Amino acid sequence: MGTNVLKTETPTSIDDAVYFLKENLNEGDHRPSISFGFGDPSCFECFRTTPVAEEAIVEAVRSAKFNSYAPTGGILPARRAVADYLSRDLPYRLSPDDVYLTLGCNQAAEITIEVLARPGANILLPRPGYPDIEAYAIFNKLEIRQFDLLPERGWEVDLDTIEAMSDESTVAMVIINPGNPSGSVYTYNHLNKIAETARKLGIVVIADEVYGHLVYGSNPFVPMSLFATIVPVITLGSVSKRWMIPGWGLGWLVTCDPSGLLRKDEIAESINKLLVYSPFPPTLIQGAIPQILEKTTQDFFSKTINILRKNLEICYDKLKEIPCIMIPQKPEGAFFAMVELNLLLLEDIEDDMEFCLKLAKEESLIILPGVTVGLKNYINYILL
Amino acid sequence: MGTNVLKTETPTSIDDAVYFLKENLNEGDHRPSISFGFGDPSCFECFRTTPVAEEAIVEAVRSAKFNSYAPTGGILPARRAVADYLSRDLPYRLSPDDVYLTLGCNQAAEITIEVLARPGANILLPRPGYPDIEAYAIFNKLEIRQFDLLPERGWEVDLDTIEAMSDESTVAMVIINPGNPSGSVYTYNHLNKIAETARKLGIVVIADEVYGHLVYGSNPFVPMSLFATIVPVITLGSVSKRWMIPGWGLGWLVTCDPSGLLRKDEIAESINKLLVYSPFPPTLIQGAIPQILEKTTQDFFSKTINILRKNLEICYDKLKEIPCIMIPQKPEGAFFAMVELNLLLLEDIEDDMEFCLKLAKEESLIILPGVTVGLKNYINYILL
Repeated sequence: MGTNVLKTETPTSIDDAVYFLKENLNEGDHRPSISFGFGDPSCFECFRTTPVAEEAIVEAVRSAKFNSYAPTGGILPARRAVADYLSRDLPYRLSPDDVYLTLGCNQAAEITIEVLARPGANILLPRPGYPDIEAYAIFNKLEIRQFDLLPERGWEVDLDTIEAMSDESTVAMVIINPGNPSGSVYTYNHLNKIAETARKLGIVVIADEVYGHLVYGSNPFVPMSLFATIVPVITLGSVSKRWMIPGWGLGWLVTCDPSGLLRKDEIAESINKLLVYSPFPPTLIQGAIPQILEKTTQDFFSKTINILRKNLEICYDKLKEIPCIMIPQKPEGAFFAMVELNLLLLEDIEDDMEFCLKLAKEESLIILPGVTVGLKNYINYILL
Repeated sequence: MGTNVLKTETPTSIDDAVYFLKENLNEGDHRPSISFGFGDPSCFECFRTTPVAEEAIVEAVRSAKFNSYAPTGGILPARRAVADYLSRDLPYRLSPDDVYLTLGCNQAAEITIEVLARPGANILLPRPGYPDIEAYAIFNKLEIRQFDLLPERGWEVDLDTIEAMSDESTVAMVIINPGNPSGSVYTYNHLNKIAETARKLGIVVIADEVYGHLVYGSNPFVPMSLFATIVPVITLGSVSKRWMIPGWGLGWLVTCDPSGLLRKDEIAESINKLLVYSPFPPTLIQGAIPQILEKTTQDFFSKTINILRKNLEICYDKLKEIPCIMIPQKPEGAFFAMVELNLLLLEDIEDDMEFCLKLAKEESLIILPGVTVGLKNYINYILL
């Protein structure tokens, strides 16, 4: 079975893969199916957002102050609140002018890629990585060059290959920290090395930090913007994950550029021009941002981290017992674990997609094949 | 003065024109400036939205049911509510599958244009018109062919020229009803003729009805979708204007296609594919839509209409007294009046832009020059 089906219609995107696996659940199996296909915790009661966020919306809507169109880039109090929130972790202060509010982190990525794209240019993306960023690069005709993350070194960037694969047409490199789908959390030293490498190559670092602060291992979360004096950094973030409200669609693109290199390149001007004709996050939700960022207390964050850590331990202990699975690195952040399949121990299974297809058919369990995030013969386990 | 400045940096977009005029206000004038530059009523207390809408958001956020990512096209209850709302005016029923929720009417227009664009194709747009639609056509490399709206015939479409300017590469024509910026409201008969013409030419009608139901003259609002048995119609709409909440960013794209012609062309499939990688309206706001559309009562709408009608009368009476201004058609809907300048009666004024510039400098009054909406030597007066 499997093999034939796969050869004719192998899905490549995450959505398609989840849909394909769901279509292939065994209808005769009366057990409920379990899906580890999407990293959205907000549907589980234990991950309900804080009342601070809910009341911030209630107050915003009842004030009737946030019913109008927002200015390009967002309303000032919300931009200032994001600048202040991110500045807490920095030795310098971000200004509201550095912040552009976007529809989730995805639109922030889309705008960033669109602004940097030019004919003949290329961009360095991590493998495994987040497929939407690849899609934006393809839409904008940016050549994609993939660098490896090294599982045996905590999914660190293979910096030697970075230098070899870049040239004068390279505009940026992307890092995702905490890692999606790797679950890695980069150390200060590794981020410092990334900054030094990017500086040497004369490229911008795009730091997807949508999972910022969602860490439960030994490494603390260090924002890439800490190294913005070395190299210009564009930080992408959102309230989606840390506050468990991806459906509110509020993210940000932040130019961290104390040396003014991006300003010299008129990146800020290009971002503004693009945003004029782009959809913008509802003013109503922008209006709630200052309260959400300023008033959420540590217990809410700790509660989330504790649940994630507990889930990881259960998952990790069980995965270790399975002979055909190897865990190159215990996750330390975000919602994911990338584990490797040992195909030599698996009978009649050709690759990760077939493994996941049989898991759906035989055990009503949906797990993402690694091929959807660029890494064949891994599977991507979600810790929710 | 004016003339020189204008020749070097004539602004072409509405935003740029408003900015340019604001920059040119006379600093020595201590009267407050009055801006008729933007059609956003939500900043005025008298146009505050209904408590039904506010409470719908409060309920949605407190339910914690709308914190997750929404499926492509929107959550089913919201799509169903929009289908039901629009079906009230139709002899057939729209299905939730015909409805795609978008970030305001603008994203609905953007997606529609993107879906219809193909190499070598052209699209017919009204003059005067709404510049954002032109921008989307340009981004998507659609050739723009402009047809005239006839001021002396209530800004009706010049249907004879439509036939002459279209060819086998024409994919669609756009109508804006109630009219932006004309303030016209098309009759049943005129819309019927538009449908017949489009059918003859084998093109889709894109009906921008963001001002739907905002009418205060003798013509009732007739939706273009009433003629969808004659020709496929793509309706663009939103809660922004009728509910005075443009900052909530909730709009829709609706394929009105009882004959199934769009389905045959796989337009629905293309829309879905595009939406997967597009920003989507926050689930939180989608969750409030059923209540907003179902529970708002007629008094709220009537109150708005009465204020608009009163504003129009004041404005109309005063404009009639000004010799250099001619009003080709009293507005019947939306927020705008297009009035013509008689330049023969104006000394030292070369065109509408110079008129508006001097009005800003000398009277601290900001009015949009017609050139920004495609009609030189008119000015666009906003009735708020």
